[in-house]
Amino acid sequence: MADSTLDPDTAANRAGRGESRPPPRGPHKGQLTRATILEAALGLASQIGLEGLSIGALAEVTHMSKSGVFAHFGSREELQISVIREYHTRFEEEIFFPAVREPRGLPRLRSMFERWVKRVSVEVDSGCIYISGAVEFDDRPGPVRDALVAMVRTWHHALQRAILIAIEEQHLRPDTDPTQLLFEIHGLILALHHDARFMRNPGAVERAGAGFERILRDHFGPAAPAARAAPGRHAAKAR
Amino acid sequence: MADSTLDPDTAANRAGRGESRPPPRGPHKGQLTRATILEAALGLASQIGLEGLSIGALAEVTHMSKSGVFAHFGSREELQISVIREYHTRFEEEIFFPAVREPRGLPRLRSMFERWVKRVSVEVDSGCIYISGAVEFDDRPGPVRDALVAMVRTWHHALQRAILIAIEEQHLRPDTDPTQLLFEIHGLILALHHDARFMRNPGAVERAGAGFERILRDHFGPAAPAARAAPGRHAAKAR
Repeated sequence: MADSTLDPDTAANRAGRGESRPPPRGPHKGQLTRATILEAALGLASQIGLEGLSIGALAEVTHMSKSGVFAHFGSREELQISVIREYHTRFEEEIFFPAVREPRGLPRLRSMFERWVKRVSVEVDSGCIYISGAVEFDDRPGPVRDALVAMVRTWHHALQRAILIAIEEQHLRPDTDPTQLLFEIHGLILALHHDARFMRNPGAVERAGAGFERILRDHFGPAAPAARAAPGRHAAKAR
Repeated sequence: MADSTLDPDTAANRAGRGESRPPPRGPHKGQLTRATILEAALGLASQIGLEGLSIGALAEVTHMSKSGVFAHFGSREELQISVIREYHTRFEEEIFFPAVREPRGLPRLRSMFERWVKRVSVEVDSGCIYISGAVEFDDRPGPVRDALVAMVRTWHHALQRAILIAIEEQHLRPDTDPTQLLFEIHGLILALHHDARFMRNPGAVERAGAGFERILRDHFGPAAPAARAAPGRHAAKAR
């Protein structure tokens, strides 16, 4: 589980892992089948949780035989871990890679947060595997829990690096504590997921955005870009 | 589920509900048995989740017959709802009732938050039924979910009332948005639960406390008691 992605440098290596990515000369049938099963597994896990995943349930959903599914994923555990990795890959592609193309400092950090919020708000109807998985596996030691923790930690490290760069760029004050900032930002995401998905409260996306901007304002450095003054992308979204 | 407690005025009515409270002249044997089962159910639900509760599992833990347990809780659903109510009653007794004895305004709000943090940090080894239940039942409509939402909403209303009183007392600025404040404070609690229980990160309690004080500072009104200047109970705890 030391497979630390979420780093542009390692993106080139991903094809080498051969996971759910077709090789350049077109996929084999076996890989296509694996991708189909994984797609179904991801959908199932989002709805009923990683613990609800089983070879049997997947066979039913994909109209395959149990032994057919089993040929691609040797165990329920392997299936769960593959789903976590696939989820992580998509999370990277949707949130991390577009965000690191933004300028260093607050623009990049804001982009990471906004894309994260967007993803969680899309997931209100399906559920976030990271957040639900954390509750499902918080007291179940083993390789599935380890995989989940490793993926969440990788994402948190990426956010912390973005915060550190924002400090370097003097967008945030030099005495900003990146771990504390990350903790508070993550809390906003968890509150958004809870309020939107469980309580069905309206306005949670806006509240998460307002909380984020307030946290940033408390830590603005001398070179902080005035994103709230000129109504940019974020301001338009949060109002 | 309109059973809105968390209000000192209705505390007197609780005995009338006859739930897990012995009547003045000493409990009947049936009530003792019910309390014993409920105690075991609460422990079980904290560990394996509300969904893991079953008449069979409880019979095993309590060394009773299934029909014995069934005589007290007619269905699994009734059992789950009783556990939620019992959890809520204890939550009230541990957090809400002691806190409302504190002076109006920030002292009371701080006490509510600190006791909440303390409870969640004690629950790191067992799990919080409110937080885990929210994930378990976020997409399972029905009376159990309704009971959970009602209990969480009751507690959130109590917090919002405490925030409103702090505004009245001019401890917080008049333009403070109670819903926004509650959202952010709740986020800190969720991040604490996530980091301490799932990630096993050290320092989460201190980070929740630091986040809370930063939120308050951003909203201090003209009469805010200077709790951070003179190292009081909270400052001592958060460092």
